[in-house]
Amino acid sequence: MNAQPKTKAVVLLSGGMDSAVVLAQARADGCDAHALSVRYGQRHNAELVAAAQLAAALGAASYRIVEVDLRAIGGSALTADIDVPEAPSEGIPVTYVPARNTIMLSIALAQAEVLGASAIYVGVNAVDYSGYPDCRPAFIDAFERLANVATKAAIEGTPMRIVAPLIDLSKGDIVRLGLRLGVDFALTVSCYQADAQGLACGRCDACRLRAAGFADALVADPTRYATPA
Amino acid sequence: MNAQPKTKAVVLLSGGMDSAVVLAQARADGCDAHALSVRYGQRHNAELVAAAQLAAALGAASYRIVEVDLRAIGGSALTADIDVPEAPSEGIPVTYVPARNTIMLSIALAQAEVLGASAIYVGVNAVDYSGYPDCRPAFIDAFERLANVATKAAIEGTPMRIVAPLIDLSKGDIVRLGLRLGVDFALTVSCYQADAQGLACGRCDACRLRAAGFADALVADPTRYATPA
Repeated sequence: MNAQPKTKAVVLLSGGMDSAVVLAQARADGCDAHALSVRYGQRHNAELVAAAQLAAALGAASYRIVEVDLRAIGGSALTADIDVPEAPSEGIPVTYVPARNTIMLSIALAQAEVLGASAIYVGVNAVDYSGYPDCRPAFIDAFERLANVATKAAIEGTPMRIVAPLIDLSKGDIVRLGLRLGVDFALTVSCYQADAQGLACGRCDACRLRAAGFADALVADPTRYATPA
Repeated sequence: MNAQPKTKAVVLLSGGMDSAVVLAQARADGCDAHALSVRYGQRHNAELVAAAQLAAALGAASYRIVEVDLRAIGGSALTADIDVPEAPSEGIPVTYVPARNTIMLSIALAQAEVLGASAIYVGVNAVDYSGYPDCRPAFIDAFERLANVATKAAIEGTPMRIVAPLIDLSKGDIVRLGLRLGVDFALTVSCYQADAQGLACGRCDACRLRAAGFADALVADPTRYATPA
């Protein structure tokens, strides 16, 4: 009696709350989930420390970090010497990293092909988000179409699915889903400028969106904040 | 009297003959050409030394190297401990690097957005090539569609063109085009396993395709070969 082999999936894991919920969802969907973080020159390392802990806590089949030095390109408050804004702004904010999700999904596609995975899970969200173009359904659909002509596996008949289970959820919904799936949000770091201990600033977009999500879900947020100045 | 501002383009430049011709074509098309190499963990550095020389010789407006460590992913004779084949093989060869062109075009897209460029030039070729899936017109078309939903620039109304001027040319045609555009092929390195001095093996797929192209064009190939064992 052979058990049905599990679907292999690559899960992009940042260390923030959304991708933690996505990893838990991939596991709940019955996947062998291979977690992948991309170190792209972001200002702090606390997110990646959190990602490694989350991969272990949520039962990832493997955890890998791939480096791509987007500081050579710059153009964002997360990868260049531009201040992270601490008040809401109009339009697409300076924390937008040019083509970031395209690059991260491309690297995940390479990993998926090497592993023989047939799905890539990604935590993009088009509801309570920062207006980034590469978090919209049209982007995910276009990447899936690309993935299905880009690889040897696709040519040989193994289709690739890009799974974005949070795309239509509010931040409050994401908190509720994560709690249902057993995510320990105390392990996650959302802040764009967390310190070396992972303490959050409480003022950037990412901190504000997270706090609003927990408030909406009527759940206490375990975020540890740096002492305000 | 203001001159019309030139179109800015990002040109993916590997140091091989095809991308050198593409850079020359971008300049002939009147572009400010920003050359970009991706160091992805390929076995040797001779190609990138060649790329820097070509960028200068062909009048690139800038030259930049971005690192992405695909050795963390492996799966190819170019990025893992797998021998480069020295005889023709059936199907897609082990020198195929999973999702390589997707990753390189994604990084070029980030660079294009930061520079305000409206075109990305890439030297893929679907005629005398090694059967790589990410060298086909369907792949280029799918990436262009993705690029036009992926970025802040696209959302704000600046379309992105992916230009693949060699895609329908034979290797002989590429040699002839390069000579017409003034490319010094002595500066280019095609070999998958060139030594530190850029001397070619003469046996891998890339060496064979290059030699056949020069033979077809009835032109002497300036490739310097390592002394055969």
